Order: sequence, then C-alpha cells, then structure tokens
Amino acid sequence: MSSVEYFTKVREQTISFCKHLSIEDYSIQVATFASPAKWHLAHTTWFFETFILKNYVQDYVEFDANFNFLFNSYYNNVGSRILQANRGNMSRPSIDEVYKYRAHVDAKMQDFLINLNDEKILDLVTLGLNHEQQHQELLITDVKYMFGHNPIFPVYNKDYNLIKDVNLNKNSIKINSGLYKIGYQGNDFCYDNELGVHQVFVDDFEINNYLVTNGDYIEFIESGAYSDFNLWLDDGWSWVNKNKINAPMYWHKIDNEWHNYTLAGLQKVDKKAILCHINYYEAHAFAEWKGMRLPTEFEWEIAAQQLNWGKRWEWTNSAYLAYPNFKKENGAVGEYNGKFMSNRMVLRGASVATSKNHSRYTYRNFFNPTERWQFTGIRLVK
Amino acid sequence: MSSVEYFTKVREQTISFCKHLSIEDYSIQVATFASPAKWHLAHTTWFFETFILKNYVQDYVEFDANFNFLFNSYYNNVGSRILQANRGNMSRPSIDEVYKYRAHVDAKMQDFLINLNDEKILDLVTLGLNHEQQHQELLITDVKYMFGHNPIFPVYNKDYNLIKDVNLNKNSIKINSGLYKIGYQGNDFCYDNELGVHQVFVDDFEINNYLVTNGDYIEFIESGAYSDFNLWLDDGWSWVNKNKINAPMYWHKIDNEWHNYTLAGLQKVDKKAILCHINYYEAHAFAEWKGMRLPTEFEWEIAAQQLNWGKRWEWTNSAYLAYPNFKKENGAVGEYNGKFMSNRMVLRGASVATSKNHSRYTYRNFFNPTERWQFTGIRLVK
Amino acid sequence: MSSVEYFTKVREQTISFCKHLSIEDYSIQVATFASPAKWHLAHTTWFFETFILKNYVQDYVEFDANFNFLFNSYYNNVGSRILQANRGNMSRPSIDEVYKYRAHVDAKMQDFLINLNDEKILDLVTLGLNHEQQHQELLITDVKYMFGHNPIFPVYNKDYNLIKDVNLNKNSIKINSGLYKIGYQGNDFCYDNELGVHQVFVDDFEINNYLVTNGDYIEFIESGAYSDFNLWLDDGWSWVNKNKINAPMYWHKIDNEWHNYTLAGLQKVDKKAILCHINYYEAHAFAEWKGMRLPTEFEWEIAAQQLNWGKRWEWTNSAYLAYPNFKKENGAVGEYNGKFMSNRMVLRGASVATSKNHSRYTYRNFFNPTERWQFTGIRLVK
Amino acid sequence: MSSVEYFTKVREQTISFCKHLSIEDYSIQVATFASPAKWHLAHTTWFFETFILKNYVQDYVEFDANFNFLFNSYYNNVGSRILQANRGNMSRPSIDEVYKYRAHVDAKMQDFLINLNDEKILDLVTLGLNHEQQHQELLITDVKYMFGHNPIFPVYNKDYNLIKDVNLNKNSIKINSGLYKIGYQGNDFCYDNELGVHQVFVDDFEINNYLVTNGDYIEFIESGAYSDFNLWLDDGWSWVNKNKINAPMYWHKIDNEWHNYTLAGLQKVDKKAILCHINYYEAHAFAEWKGMRLPTEFEWEIAAQQLNWGKRWEWTNSAYLAYPNFKKENGAVGEYNGKFMSNRMVLRGASVATSKNHSRYTYRNFFNPTERWQFTGIRLVK
Repeated sequence: MSSVEYFTKVREQTISFCKHLSIEDYSIQVATFASPAKWHLAHTTWFFETFILKNYVQDYVEFDANFNFLFNSYYNNVGSRILQANRGNMSRPSIDEVYKYRAHVDAKMQDFLINLNDEKILDLVTLGLNHEQQHQELLITDVKYMFGHNPIFPVYNKDYNLIKDVNLNKNSIKINSGLYKIGYQGNDFCYDNELGVHQVFVDDFEINNYLVTNGDYIEFIESGAYSDFNLWLDDGWSWVNKNKINAPMYWHKIDNEWHNYTLAGLQKVDKKAILCHINYYEAHAFAEWKGMRLPTEFEWEIAAQQLNWGKRWEWTNSAYLAYPNFKKENGAVGEYNGKFMSNRMVLRGASVATSKNHSRYTYRNFFNPTERWQFTGIRLVK
Repeated sequence: MSSVEYFTKVREQTISFCKHLSIEDYSIQVATFASPAKWHLAHTTWFFETFILKNYVQDYVEFDANFNFLFNSYYNNVGSRILQANRGNMSRPSIDEVYKYRAHVDAKMQDFLINLNDEKILDLVTLGLNHEQQHQELLITDVKYMFGHNPIFPVYNKDYNLIKDVNLNKNSIKINSGLYKIGYQGNDFCYDNELGVHQVFVDDFEINNYLVTNGDYIEFIESGAYSDFNLWLDDGWSWVNKNKINAPMYWHKIDNEWHNYTLAGLQKVDKKAILCHINYYEAHAFAEWKGMRLPTEFEWEIAAQQLNWGKRWEWTNSAYLAYPNFKKENGAVGEYNGKFMSNRMVLRGASVATSKNHSRYTYRNFFNPTERWQFTGIRLVK
Repeated sequence: MSSVEYFTKVREQTISFCKHLSIEDYSIQVATFASPAKWHLAHTTWFFETFILKNYVQDYVEFDANFNFLFNSYYNNVGSRILQANRGNMSRPSIDEVYKYRAHVDAKMQDFLINLNDEKILDLVTLGLNHEQQHQELLITDVKYMFGHNPIFPVYNKDYNLIKDVNLNKNSIKINSGLYKIGYQGNDFCYDNELGVHQVFVDDFEINNYLVTNGDYIEFIESGAYSDFNLWLDDGWSWVNKNKINAPMYWHKIDNEWHNYTLAGLQKVDKKAILCHINYYEAHAFAEWKGMRLPTEFEWEIAAQQLNWGKRWEWTNSAYLAYPNFKKENGAVGEYNGKFMSNRMVLRGASVATSKNHSRYTYRNFFNPTERWQFTGIRLVK
Repeated sequence: MSSVEYFTKVREQTISFCKHLSIEDYSIQVATFASPAKWHLAHTTWFFETFILKNYVQDYVEFDANFNFLFNSYYNNVGSRILQANRGNMSRPSIDEVYKYRAHVDAKMQDFLINLNDEKILDLVTLGLNHEQQHQELLITDVKYMFGHNPIFPVYNKDYNLIKDVNLNKNSIKINSGLYKIGYQGNDFCYDNELGVHQVFVDDFEINNYLVTNGDYIEFIESGAYSDFNLWLDDGWSWVNKNKINAPMYWHKIDNEWHNYTLAGLQKVDKKAILCHINYYEAHAFAEWKGMRLPTEFEWEIAAQQLNWGKRWEWTNSAYLAYPNFKKENGAVGEYNGKFMSNRMVLRGASVATSKNHSRYTYRNFFNPTERWQFTGIRLVK
C-alpha cells in the first residue's frame, strides 16, 4: 500500500467509527478523561497540520488559527491549550466545520505524500497514523462512557455489543525460567517505549491461556469481595469505599440480576463471556481471592506467542517505567510516552477497539490503576 | 386573548429564542447553574405534562416515562431526578425528540384549554406560562454563558448585542419618610412571594433615576478597587481572591482596552452603556467606593413608579426572605419560591431578556450574591 | 469601677475560664472556625497591643515582632496573618510564653490607663474589652467543640453542664402592630451595628415566652423531620443530606436513647431542658413543622422587655444587614462588624457563655445559617 | 543482648528522641501524613499490647478500652479507628497518660519476655521493635515538619541540624552486566517484602559514589528547571504547578539567598552539604537535567557493598511492587507491607534518623512520589 493509500485508509476508518453518531453525540464530555468525538476528530487532524504541514509544506496556510489552542492535547512544546475538562464546553466549531478541517488537511497531506521520500518525515506521518489509531480506540470507549452514563441507556447500534466474546480453551502454558529478550526487535513502526531490547530473567511460571469470565467475577462479588479489605491494596480499598464500588463499570443489578450496558444497549450479563471494564485494583483483588497473581509485563511478552490474546487489554503487575536505555526524543514528539512514566500500570494485549496493527507482543499500553472505561480484562498466573 | 392563544404565544416565544442555535448549541452545559437549551425546552414542557395533563386529562399517556427523571428541575415532591450538574451529559434524547415532546404536549394542552373553566387549573396553567417565561430568560443567559466561555467567542447573532442601552437622564428622585404598602395588590398573576400586602416604614431617601455605566465602573476598576479590601464585604473579598476577579463577567482586556463578550460577539466596552454582569459583592463595593449605598427592595418598590427601569436586574440590599404572612402552598407548587429563602439577595426591575408581563413593581427576583451571568446592574441611593 | 479595675477584671475573667484546661488543651484546633484557647488568649492581648499600646504609648516595645502575624484574626488593615485554619498548627509560642505576653501587655495597659482621659482612646479600650468578652464566649464554645469531637468525650468539669436550664413559664406575649424604635439609644458601649435608631413597622404578633425544649425536638426528630424535604429550606436540605445530619450537634443515640455531650461529659438528654446547638436551618424547619415561624430581629427587640431571655442565642428570621444610616468606621476598627453583612442570620438574646454586659435588647449576634457550635435555641412566633 | 534488654533499649530510644519536646509539641498534627509525637508513642505501645499481651498473656487487662480505637494506625483486621487526619484533634489522653500507658505495657512485656522461648512470639516481638524503630524515624520527620511549618521557625535543638553531612569522595563504581541475586539472604530479622531471593539481570552500569549536593541543586534551580516542562514527568509537572513549587521542602529565599529550616533553626543553605527533602519527581527531573538517570532498586542493591551510603534515603527508579514469590501473611501482620504495593516508589539506603539495624542492603523503603518530608536525596547512574 502506498503511503497515500495507507494515510487515506486510516483517516477514513476514524470517520467510519462515527457513522452511528447523531450531531449531538459528537460534542458531549461526561468526564474529564473522556473527550468528545468531535475533539478526537479534530485533534488527530491537528497532529498532521502541526507536525507535518506547518513544518514541511511551504506556503501552507493553517485552517484556523484558533485550532491550535482548541485541539492540542498535552504537548507543552506546542503552546497553551484549553483544559482537558473543558473540551465538552464548545458547541462551536460545529461538527461540520471539523469535517471541513479534516477534508482540508487530508487533501494537503495527500498532495504532500505523493512525492514524499524523506524517511524522517515519513516516520512522523507513521507516528501520526498510529496516534490516530489510538484515538480511534479512545473515541469508541469515550462514546461508550457517554452513553453508559446516560440514564436512558441509549442503544448506539444493536449489533455492536463488543464484549460478548468467550474463551477458546481452558489450558495453561508453562514457561521455563531463564533469560529472555524484551522489547521490539522488528523493522516496522513501534513506539519509543518499546525500544531498547534488553534481557530479563524470569523464574518458572504457568500462565492461563484464557481470561477471567463474568461468571468467575460474579462468584468473586458474591463471596463478599468488595467488602473484604484483606483482598485489596490499600489505595484500592480507599477507591472502593470512596466511590461505593460493588461491581465492574457499566454493571447494574436489576430485579436481582446483573445487567451491563453495552453499545447494543442494557443487557443481561453473559456469564460465559470474558469479563470487561475492571481496573487494576479489581484485577489485583481478584487474583488475591483466587490465590494467584497477575503476570508481569515481561512474563506476558515471553508467553505471548503461545497464548490466545486480543479483545481485552490485560492488566499486568508491572508499573509503567522506562526500559533500560530508553531515550526520549527532543521536542513535542518526546512528550508522547515518556512523561507518563509514573503512577500507571502496564496493560498488554489488545482490545476489540484496538487497531489491528497495534496488536503486537511488545506493545505497552498504560493507565492509572483506577481506570475502568477501557476494554480491560484479567489473566492469571501461578 | 383566549387561554389557548396565550398558551400558544408563550410556547412559541420560547422556540423563537432558539432560532439561531445550531444542533450542537442545544446540548452543552458549561457550568452547573447554566442548563442546556434542550433541557429548558423539555423542562418547561414537563411542567405542563406533570402538573396539568397527568392530573386533569383523563387517559393522558405520558410521552416518555424517562422524562420525569430527566426533566424535573428541583421538585422533590415529584420524585428523584438527575443531578443539575449532569444536565449536559445527555446527547439523547435528541433535540428532535424534544421538539416532538413539545408538539405532543402542546396539542394536548390546546385541546384541554379550549373548554377549561376551572379557575384553579387555569391558575396552574398561568403559573406554568410564567414559569416558562422565566426559563426563556434563563435560556438566553445560559446560551450567552456557553458562548462567552468558548475561547473562540462565537457570534450568536450580529444584531443581538443586548447590552448597549444607555441612561435616559441623570436626575434623582426624593422620597419622603413614611409608611408605605409593599406587595402585590392587583388581580392578575403574581408569585406567592409577592403576596401578603404589608406596611413598611422608610426614612427619607434620594434614589438615582439612572444606573451605573461601564465608564463609571472602569473608573472604579482603575482606582484599584479590586485590590482594596476596605471596599468589600468579607465574603466578597474571599470571592475576588479565590477567583482572581478583576472585572465584570465577560470583560477582557485586550491591547490595553476593555472588551466584553456580547451575543453579537466580542466588542469594545461602550463607556456610555449601562453596566452589566456584576454580582452583589461588586455592586456593594461600587456603592461603598461612591460613598453611597444600594436601595432596599422596599425603597425600590416605593420609588418604582417614578423611575426609569427595565433592561437590567438591579441588586438591592435586601436579603430574600418571606414577607409577613407568607404562605407556602402544599405540594410541588409550594417548592417554587419559598424554599430558596436563605443566602440570596433580592433583585428588582427587569432585564432585556425578561418577559414583558414579568415587569411589575412588586416582582422579586433573587440570586446568590456571587452570581453574575444574569443581566444585572447597579442603582445607587443616598 | 475605674477603667483600670474594669480592664483588670475582664482580663482576669478570660483566664478564669481556662482554669480546668491542661497544657495540651490550649493548642488544639479541630475545625477551621474553632480556634485554640491559646490563640484566643494571645489574640485578645494583641488587640490591646496593636490598637492601644503601639499607637498611644511612647517608646512601647512590642513583645514579639512575630505576634502580629500569628495573632491578627481578620483585620486586613493590620497586615497579613496566618490562615485561620492553621491556628492549631503551632506548638510554639508555648502557653507559658502567651501568659507572659498577657502579663506584659496588662502591666503596660494598667500603667497607661491610670491617667487616661482621652475619650477616643477610652472608647477603643472599651471596644477591646467587649471584644475580649466575645472571645471568652468563643473560647468556651471552641473548647466544647474540641472535647465534644474527641472520641473519648472527656469530662471538662463535672459541674459544668451549662445546658440544663428549663423554661420558667409557658405563656406568650401579644404585641400590637405599630411603629417601634429599633437600635441602641443608651449612653454606654454598644457596637456600631446597633447604632442608627430608626423606626420599623410591625404587624400584630404573639411571641412565646419560652424556648423549644429537647423533648419538643425529639418529637420533631421522631416525626421523621430530617427526611421530610417539605420542611426544609433548599440550602438546609442540602446541608442535611451532605452531612448526614439527624440530630442537634453533640447528640448521639446510644442503646436507643439520646445522649448529648456536655462539658460535664456525655449525659442522657434531659427532655425538659431547653434545646441547644441547632442551626438556622434546623430552627426554620422546626418552626415549619409546628406551623409557626421564627421572630424577626425587630419583633424580638420590641418584645424583649416583656420576655424571659438569656442562656441561649435565639435564631431570628432576619438576615444580618446594615441598619439605615449604618456608618463603617475608617481603618481596622471598621472591619469589626460591617464586612460580615452577607450570608449570615441575626441571633438575639444571650447564652450561658455570654458576658453579662453583652446582654442587651439591641445586641445583634450573627452567624452563618449552618453553624451549630454556639449555644443556640429556638423561640417561636405566631 | 537478652530479649528483655533489647526490648528495653529500643523502647527507651523512642523516649530519648522526645527529650526536647515541650508538652504542646507532643499533640499537634500539621498534615494528614504527619502524626503527633504523642500518637507515635501510644501507637507503638498499642502494637505490643494488641499483638502480644492481649493474645499471649493470660489475665492481661487492657490499659484503656478506648485506646484500640485511638491508636490503631491502619490495621483493618484490628477494628475501626479514628481517621488519620484526626490524630491531632485529641488533647486527651494527655501525654502523661500516654507515658503511663508505655510504662504499664513495658512492665508487662518485660515480665513476659523473661521466660519467653516461643520462636513465633519472639518473631512478633522483633517485628514490634522494628516497627517502633520505623516510628522513631517518623517521629523525627513529623516533628521537623511541625516546626518547619510554624511561621516562627522554632529551634528544636541548636545542635540538631541533621543535614549538614557532605560527600566523602567523588568517584563512581562500575558494575558489569550479569545475573545477580536480590533479596534478604541472612538469618536475622527482615521485612516480608525483602524475602524471596531471586535473580535479576542487569546491564553494565556506572553509579556515583556520592549524592547530589545543595550546590548542584541550586544550579538546577537557577537554570530555570522548575519552569521547564521538558524535564518533568507529567504528574510531576502538575504537582509543581498546582503547589507552586520552586525549591526543596523547607527552603526559603531570604534577601536573595537560600535558607533552609533545620531542627537547629533556619540557616543558610550549605552548598557543600548533601541535598535533602526532595521528592521523586524532583529527583527524576534533576537526573533528566543532568542527562543521567536514577538507579533501579536492583542496581542499588548490587552496588551497595561498594558504595558510601546512609544518612539520606535515595529515590530509585523502581516502583514498589512484590518480589516474585512474595507471600502476604494472614491477619493484621500481613497488612504491614503488602497492601501498599501501588503508586509508591522504592527508596534505598538509610537516613540520619534511621535506626542502625534498619541499615541493610536489602531494605525497601517506599513513599508516594510526591512526598518530601523524609530525609531524601539523589544518587545518579549513567
């Protein structure tokens, strides 16, 4: 695929995720961490305008001088910006205007890409497309969060349940102790946080080839786990009590039966389906309750070639920290990953909303241990 | 005008205020106190459905069972409801759906009103229409708040400045000390908080027949008033410092010149125009700075027949409390006014956004002393 | 009594209130509004040092240059100061040091007063002594708050219950409508907020010659009043729910019986004793429940000569606002009362902890409607 | 040393740390994380009463039934307790009473220890003594925090500067890549979080044999580091801005010269002395600025035998997580370490306030990345 074709394909995918949205759905922000769809559409476009077009296309005229302020996410190197919590306060620019912005930037990018051979710039374009694919996933989870917190539980699309997949088998994989290489060794795109191949020693371990199901988790709930402090990390116990948590995100007990909100509407929880929308504290407590533990990100990466995985991000017991020899790039691009290396835990795998070419053994996703709105699950290790 | 005609006219007025709104503009909530236009449209409709149609129209089928939860404002007697802060979280029901709701309720109401003679029910309808007119004013001020806090300062309508009126003259009115009757004495509609005519003794006073202008207020600012604690009430001084206030709401100093956001866009402040968008603390501090004071609500009411007023709500120095013999009605209607009688100050007059038939000498508006988003101004007394 | 004798007497009274305090008791601050006893002792002393000695005694050397920062309460005119919330963070200066400070200032003041004839300065001294008497009351209520929030409920002094007084009779007083003079008309000391005698017209009213008892209030509680929104002001209802209130301050239900903390320890609630430690919202809701109302501060002042009163501060239905012709003094002394004239309600009467010479018909006490730690009660009006 | 002698020695050490405290100094709590000295004295005593005397000494009568509520720290298994933030609200029990509590428990413990041979109970006693030694360190840092936040900066003891030590040399140590054993391998006491010896592979590294000095850090400050976002982790940058940080804790710029509060009073910063009181974010930013990095806890442990260390806790770049095969004990003792394994970073080494027998290569200290009130420093690695 040519770079123009690839660019166009990724950009169209983003729009295709929006095809069921009404105009009102594009602008609402329900929580600070969940941005409006309109913002995702504009911000991913701003990335190309800011890092490619303004820098490398002579005579490029920016679409709207206000957009740098409105659609910068967290790049301090690119100037000030609206607070993340205020992204949903803006009815204007309209979604029509944002689609015009996308068309404008796409046309300029397509022209520019036709004759582009500069490796460094092509790498930046690839970064921009991977960035856009990450936002495709956020767009879906943010839309789900908006609908899932609307008291009338709108059906986004009745065919779009997204969380009904089940485990393919119930075996486990044994891995021998030894030195293993960790980190990306291929020649394609990867993020800077995957680089710096290095050796890690692991002991023998046995890892499940399947994830925890809703049925498993209902047993955990019914055992009284949400009120047994011995199962919880201290921060997790505070989180449970402060927020009065007693089930995964989107779960509601109605007439004594667990239901959960899906993009296909409110449905009975399917006990056979793989559990979704729990945070690190819940994953940790569940493992404690089972007398097992979560894998480290290294164990996961070592075992990954032999495992069934994908459709859930899996919490690991590794903090998100720099690999040895991690090198932060200069300028805005260096803000992409490195600055988040504190207070976050690593997730491995991929979710139903993850772009296919983000599904690699070495990919390091990371979130605060309290977050639940991503499609997260639990794999256990002995 | 027949009751059907009057009903229809008020209901259409609400919609006419929305004619410049884009679909996105209807749903956004920027602050807890400022509701989305969509919510105002639905809530005023809910009032008629809940208090008239459900109670008095046999076989009335409610439009949507969820709407009582979504569109109740603060009536505890009518059941639970979403938090005020979450009114902007709902992209659904869509604005189309809400307009259908209005049409449905309007048709039923029109049918019902044709042959209605029951005084008590007619009074409730009148209350509902006055309620709707209050929301028309809130709708405009809430829309202004949304646009005024959008960093791109959208022009809502270039002919819709709304705050460029000037004083007609500069004289003052002397009133002699004596006993005066306060409260509504007519036969038309008024709110329960205006009832209970009673006598009040006032001393001689002299009240300005004009309001403070932007030019006056710029002098106040330039004298250093926002950093002179001696001018401020203690709570006001805390408010100034906590919020780093240095000018009225919507004012911005650009290139050393004061601009203010109007619904016609960001414009230079017109020094001759009457000041707008200050709160009680600012009004009180300005009076202190001038060596004058604000009128009490009684002084205002006594002088009102001789005064030029209208187009600004005027802060008085009276706390919003019950008149002697105030009687709260039973049930939900009793929640309309009485329960807000603490921590609020009375405003008298009327603003550019106030319905004409709300403009009466005895009308008691009330807001927390911190609020500035209404069209508020200052009149002084010696 | 000479001014030296009077000065000495008031100053000694303050110390006598502390005679049961251990050294630790002097320094603790449990809530922002409740200052440590050590702070009261020092702050009242600072008042004389700052406003008298430094201004009028030649060659006066201040005791410690840090004390102006530490012991200024809220006088912006006298410079910056520690945050009110941090008054309990200071173990040093020690209580010994603070007693030395008192002795030092007292000696200088006594010398100075012997030959003092300047009326203006004598007035300031009188203000300082009245100020100290107000702090004597705060000292007691703050100490009670500290002990009452200690889970072991220490007995401060077994003879010091303070809230066991009962009503002397059960009649009521009728007052005829008419014009009455309000405000202080005598020649002795009063605060600036009592000045400006003016006429007020009141309608006929009948006021109870007794206060609400604990027994009355238990009926109110048992009727379910704390969960009946119709009885409450909107702000009061929020306060009840946010703080999960179900009884007066210091009340605890133990083995199905109401107990309350007194300075003599935790005791069973005496149903015959006069109710104490309720706030304005509770007073208002109780009146609503009884189908009666609270008096205005004017009704109270008019009826006061015929009423039994004293030992409870009585919530009125009047907001704390300036009398007509109220004049704020220049400088720090002007900060004493005027700047608090928003968001507070007037209390009339006097409590068991109030200095005798603060017990006058015209005295205007004021607190936020949420406060309960003063010795507050309820009188009703028809 | 017999177990009685050892017990007595540790218990007396705690008291000796208090010898300069006035009675008021014992009870104050300035921040939620910093407990009053009185609480430390009682809590360490409660540990022996609760886990030894009540369980193993027949007919033991508890000193005061309220103390379990007052002096439990965070052991959910031992029942409810006062909120950590309220430890400073209690003037009673008095410090005298707490010393009596200590004497009572000490006498019973000494009697009990004389003939004690049960290994399991002896291990618990050892845990209790190590626990007490940790609180000795906290007692000192909490007292420093109290005095350091008192605007008059009291001199605790003029000979007690504690942070004037300097580096002994300026060389660095090279370690070869390879597999190394991590974890406690001795036979004496260690905490459960040090157990589970396991191999870790590390690459070649070179580690400084000295710590960052005040002089180094002043260069960092003067380079504008506190306003250069590129140096900071995202959470650190938020912390800097939210708290307006521009220097280490206890530093104040006076007359253009840096001073810092020490227990010997406010003193000029000694540029040659080793830096103290910085948090993880500051340590990380400093390393970034130097183009170096912090060691991992494994690198530190591997190099420790060749390094000068002690007198500062050194921030590592390792999150505080369980070692492979970490086993949490059942019941309250299991709450000691394991439940804190999220959102904290590991510190290695020992501070001036650390008990000598806590100074071992494998000791894992841990704090939130925001904390600065411990005696913390920075060592760099290439």
